[in-house]
Amino acid sequence: MIYQMTAKYIVYSFAIFCIPYCNGAAFDIQLDAKAQSTHRLDSLNLLSYTFLLILTVLTIWLFKHRRVSFLHETGLAVIYGLIVGAIIRYSGSSSQVLNMQVYGNDPSYNSSIPPDTLSLYFPINGKSQMNRTFQYVFREQISDLKQNEIDLKATFDPEIFFNIILPPIIFHAGYSLKRKYFFRNLGAILTYAIIGTTVSSFAVGGLMYGCVQLMPAKLANSFTFLDTLYFGALISSTDPLTILAIFNDLNVDVNLYALVFGESVLNDAVAIVLSGSIQNYGKRYQSGSGGFETKAFFKALGDFFGIFMLSLVIGAVMGCVTALMTKFTRVRDFPLLESALFVLMSYSTFLIAEAAELTGVVAVLFCGICQAHYTYNNLSEDSRIRTKQMFELLNFLAENFIFSYIGVSMFTFPKHHFDPLFISTGFICAAIGRAANIYPLSFLLNLGRKPKIPSNFQHMLFFAGLRGAMSFALAIRNTMSEARQAMLTTTSLIVIITVIIQGGATMSLLNWFQIPVGIDDETEALSTQGVHSGGSTPRGGGGGDWSEINGSSEFPKSHQNEKAFLARIWGSFDTHYMKPLLTHSRPTLLDTLPVCCNPLARLLTTTEQMTQEGAHKRDSDSDLCIEDNDLYSTNNVRPKL
Amino acid sequence: MIYQMTAKYIVYSFAIFCIPYCNGAAFDIQLDAKAQSTHRLDSLNLLSYTFLLILTVLTIWLFKHRRVSFLHETGLAVIYGLIVGAIIRYSGSSSQVLNMQVYGNDPSYNSSIPPDTLSLYFPINGKSQMNRTFQYVFREQISDLKQNEIDLKATFDPEIFFNIILPPIIFHAGYSLKRKYFFRNLGAILTYAIIGTTVSSFAVGGLMYGCVQLMPAKLANSFTFLDTLYFGALISSTDPLTILAIFNDLNVDVNLYALVFGESVLNDAVAIVLSGSIQNYGKRYQSGSGGFETKAFFKALGDFFGIFMLSLVIGAVMGCVTALMTKFTRVRDFPLLESALFVLMSYSTFLIAEAAELTGVVAVLFCGICQAHYTYNNLSEDSRIRTKQMFELLNFLAENFIFSYIGVSMFTFPKHHFDPLFISTGFICAAIGRAANIYPLSFLLNLGRKPKIPSNFQHMLFFAGLRGAMSFALAIRNTMSEARQAMLTTTSLIVIITVIIQGGATMSLLNWFQIPVGIDDETEALSTQGVHSGGSTPRGGGGGDWSEINGSSEFPKSHQNEKAFLARIWGSFDTHYMKPLLTHSRPTLLDTLPVCCNPLARLLTTTEQMTQEGAHKRDSDSDLCIEDNDLYSTNNVRPKL
Repeated sequence: MIYQMTAKYIVYSFAIFCIPYCNGAAFDIQLDAKAQSTHRLDSLNLLSYTFLLILTVLTIWLFKHRRVSFLHETGLAVIYGLIVGAIIRYSGSSSQVLNMQVYGNDPSYNSSIPPDTLSLYFPINGKSQMNRTFQYVFREQISDLKQNEIDLKATFDPEIFFNIILPPIIFHAGYSLKRKYFFRNLGAILTYAIIGTTVSSFAVGGLMYGCVQLMPAKLANSFTFLDTLYFGALISSTDPLTILAIFNDLNVDVNLYALVFGESVLNDAVAIVLSGSIQNYGKRYQSGSGGFETKAFFKALGDFFGIFMLSLVIGAVMGCVTALMTKFTRVRDFPLLESALFVLMSYSTFLIAEAAELTGVVAVLFCGICQAHYTYNNLSEDSRIRTKQMFELLNFLAENFIFSYIGVSMFTFPKHHFDPLFISTGFICAAIGRAANIYPLSFLLNLGRKPKIPSNFQHMLFFAGLRGAMSFALAIRNTMSEARQAMLTTTSLIVIITVIIQGGATMSLLNWFQIPVGIDDETEALSTQGVHSGGSTPRGGGGGDWSEINGSSEFPKSHQNEKAFLARIWGSFDTHYMKPLLTHSRPTLLDTLPVCCNPLARLLTTTEQMTQEGAHKRDSDSDLCIEDNDLYSTNNVRPKL
Repeated sequence: MIYQMTAKYIVYSFAIFCIPYCNGAAFDIQLDAKAQSTHRLDSLNLLSYTFLLILTVLTIWLFKHRRVSFLHETGLAVIYGLIVGAIIRYSGSSSQVLNMQVYGNDPSYNSSIPPDTLSLYFPINGKSQMNRTFQYVFREQISDLKQNEIDLKATFDPEIFFNIILPPIIFHAGYSLKRKYFFRNLGAILTYAIIGTTVSSFAVGGLMYGCVQLMPAKLANSFTFLDTLYFGALISSTDPLTILAIFNDLNVDVNLYALVFGESVLNDAVAIVLSGSIQNYGKRYQSGSGGFETKAFFKALGDFFGIFMLSLVIGAVMGCVTALMTKFTRVRDFPLLESALFVLMSYSTFLIAEAAELTGVVAVLFCGICQAHYTYNNLSEDSRIRTKQMFELLNFLAENFIFSYIGVSMFTFPKHHFDPLFISTGFICAAIGRAANIYPLSFLLNLGRKPKIPSNFQHMLFFAGLRGAMSFALAIRNTMSEARQAMLTTTSLIVIITVIIQGGATMSLLNWFQIPVGIDDETEALSTQGVHSGGSTPRGGGGGDWSEINGSSEFPKSHQNEKAFLARIWGSFDTHYMKPLLTHSRPTLLDTLPVCCNPLARLLTTTEQMTQEGAHKRDSDSDLCIEDNDLYSTNNVRPKL
């Protein structure tokens, strides 16, 4: 909390400087709003098709279940399509398309923002009576016409990153989360991810702004404090991929693994929400509601928590809805339909959040965690394998694509702005920001933590701060102004350098910091502080192999009391109410709810749950409920990362 | 052949009429060419990233294999990206972007076709010194501005169908092809698919043109013969999905199944190549190389066979290359990399063909067949399951998406042109065209065929001609002119009606025609002509379940001599040379090649092949090589459709 107070004052003091440099800023804000509403429309569009498909899948299942045969699946899809099409057509059209006619100097066009479409009357063979009309759609603001040739090749619409490439990566992170160690270290992870990322953002933003002011006037004038703060936010998200692949190969201590993984997964979510709040703050602040920036700041703070929590809730709810669907229907009898439903529900979570102007990344992350924690238990064996393998493959392809693209776009993306001074400042500030996240917070955490985070782990956490997909995606999303272009270039370079240098040095650093490797899942360095040199059985080839999902985990009793207080409360609630409600696990709600709720409990308990004898007890994880697991379950299925 | 001769004269006689109606046609052709080159650029663009990923996957494997650890996968992807980006940047830029400046009446713009981009100088707050420049990109030709509001919601770029939705559907068709019965009926399938589709196209095209001439002048004038011929080609492709799902559920006779499936898979390929040739013919004919249309016609004929065969070869070669990659490397040790390689190689096949101005759909279809026939045998168990399940799911989602979209777009796509006269003519002609395909050709086939195609099978083939994804995709690809818009509307309606009505009536029709259902794979109605009422064990739930892939097939000896001559020749070559070269199967090349080639044969034979004792004999199918299978293999893996 203390960090955020300080941060607020930084905002106060710097915000004053930024007014003189805000020429045309109101216009930019209108453009931003336009881009946002376009994005929202895209999401709604995709969402309507996703819902159509979900509806189709559910109806197909019902028809198959009831042995209806007069209509087949394609027929169903067509009919639903017709219905939705008619609704879209005859419901009030809410999208306003601003069109402007070219070659006629359209006098009717009087909006203050540029049109969405241009219509060009084009004479054919020079004869005007053979005019054709062509439509052109808005693409971007440009500064230099020369650059556009490269622009049309080897570049993609940044929206593709957000709507297509990021969701599977983030979902996979949630779906494959090693929840046992994640929840054990929840306090530390949340501290690093939420407080740490905020601290880092403001540290980088403030430092950068200070440095930029010392630079030549042209550069200094093009940056507002909000710009540098936005840069701070996007550069504070770290990428787990490279480090974790190495950790996986080496069987690094599970708690270090959980800290790095958990922090980098969550700080992606925090960074994206934070950067959104910063933009909103700018919008409110500059749209001139009186200049009382405290209000705007608190609104931004509210935005940050509001958006984060609402997105989290949407993700969790959609995950739980999928769990209920798979629990109370027999869609399991048709694994293909079940898998399709699973994929569609997960993707629609992302789209719902985006369409509601929340953060799809956060929603899909928590949806993935819920899907793994609840839905996974209800799935048929076929769907379990299929969904896991598919998301693993999608994640692999998407991540490698994004890193390839970062490389290619360094040369082909036309909006790079190389400024050596800004770039080198960016590198230094990013490192300082990372240090400002890890070291002070580790110190504070160690005050209260039982197994302390040793200094070699802290150094490793510092060095594990590679920048990746999320930083790049946020940077490339808006490259209108020169400041943003310089930020994109700097971000690209930081990503490239950290991935190559830090990624390559990980192995040596692990040796240098004497961090135990070749550790069994169950023997942890944190609690014993000894260096185990256990057999280095590979934890799975190919960047996280989930094939050995059936390994049973026998959990040492001694760890029970080390669990965080929060995790224990939640674990008990989860075992007694959530799991019985959402999965086929035991105890059932009949056992856990008070007697007065029996009718309701009976309704929510399936016959499988009542009659099973261990068949469905195979659970997706055993992290939160060790006490109960010891009683009820002996054979836990724990997905490997 | 006789049909094609007739067809030629139809072209002759009608082609003369079309000249008066070709005002602005040369312009349209330029536009088409522009669209084609844009599509090619898109394909090249995607292809470069796919190659990058293939390169990354192979290098990752090499690094893992050699235990190199100084560089990790993401680092690799970035470095390759940088290299490729630099090449793109500094190699001569070949893409010409036509830009035109708006508000300034750009005098430097003097091209006869509309620009790719417009730059708009937009004054901010009315002050011209604060001008910003925005770029707009070409979208389409429009006729009515009012319609554009719907246009921006709930519609997709038609290119998405071709580059994203169709490839997995077509690949899956090839990958899941039941090759045993496909090859047994190869002659009939090829006859229906190649000759029949051509006959049907010309029948529909000719009839439609004749009918259109009798209609009101406005309509008549807007159609050229090439337009109606194009319509004939696109409406002649049939969709297997709905019918086959029902056939699958009912265990319909395997030969009827093979005929319907084989024909509808191949006629998609034929229709797309045919429609391309028709467009090219039009281009040559109208670009005025002298008006000698015989030349253009033979060129179109050459196009048709040339493009088809070249695309087929590219698909087959890419499939074989993947087989060699998986045979001679140990990438199998890392199933995730192996699956990624498999997916990337298959997708790149589509893109290579498209970038080479061939037909990606044909290439990816034959690539799928080769992947199933060769590569599948080399894959690890994990990759086999993963690739099959993934493509099954992708196919399911893509097909349902496309049918939903057909429904939605009926109302939301702005370029529909409802003309009841044209639509009803279209329905009748489509049915006549289908009849002109099936009945005469069945008669001819039965003259030479041993197990004749009974008349009830012929009726079923006629009714199985639902129109689907391919027809729609071809129709929506170009909606510039009013004629094309009327064709899109008619095609959409034909698809919707046939899918709902014919799809729904399939079950009743099967009864009506007394077609045997509940037939075991091995007892066929064709050869015995008896009605079996065997146990109706479902052939797999959920639209083609591949879970029972290990069912061993014991093939009755009596069928040996019924195989087509072509199939027998190919089967022997396949068993003796192709399979030993491309898979781990036996006999090895050491056994089958002449002694003089021994050094080469040893090079191409892996140690697994030499030492195996039945472990790798599990083959993906046993269709072509029954004689040899009886000798070498007892446990065949045959993917179920």
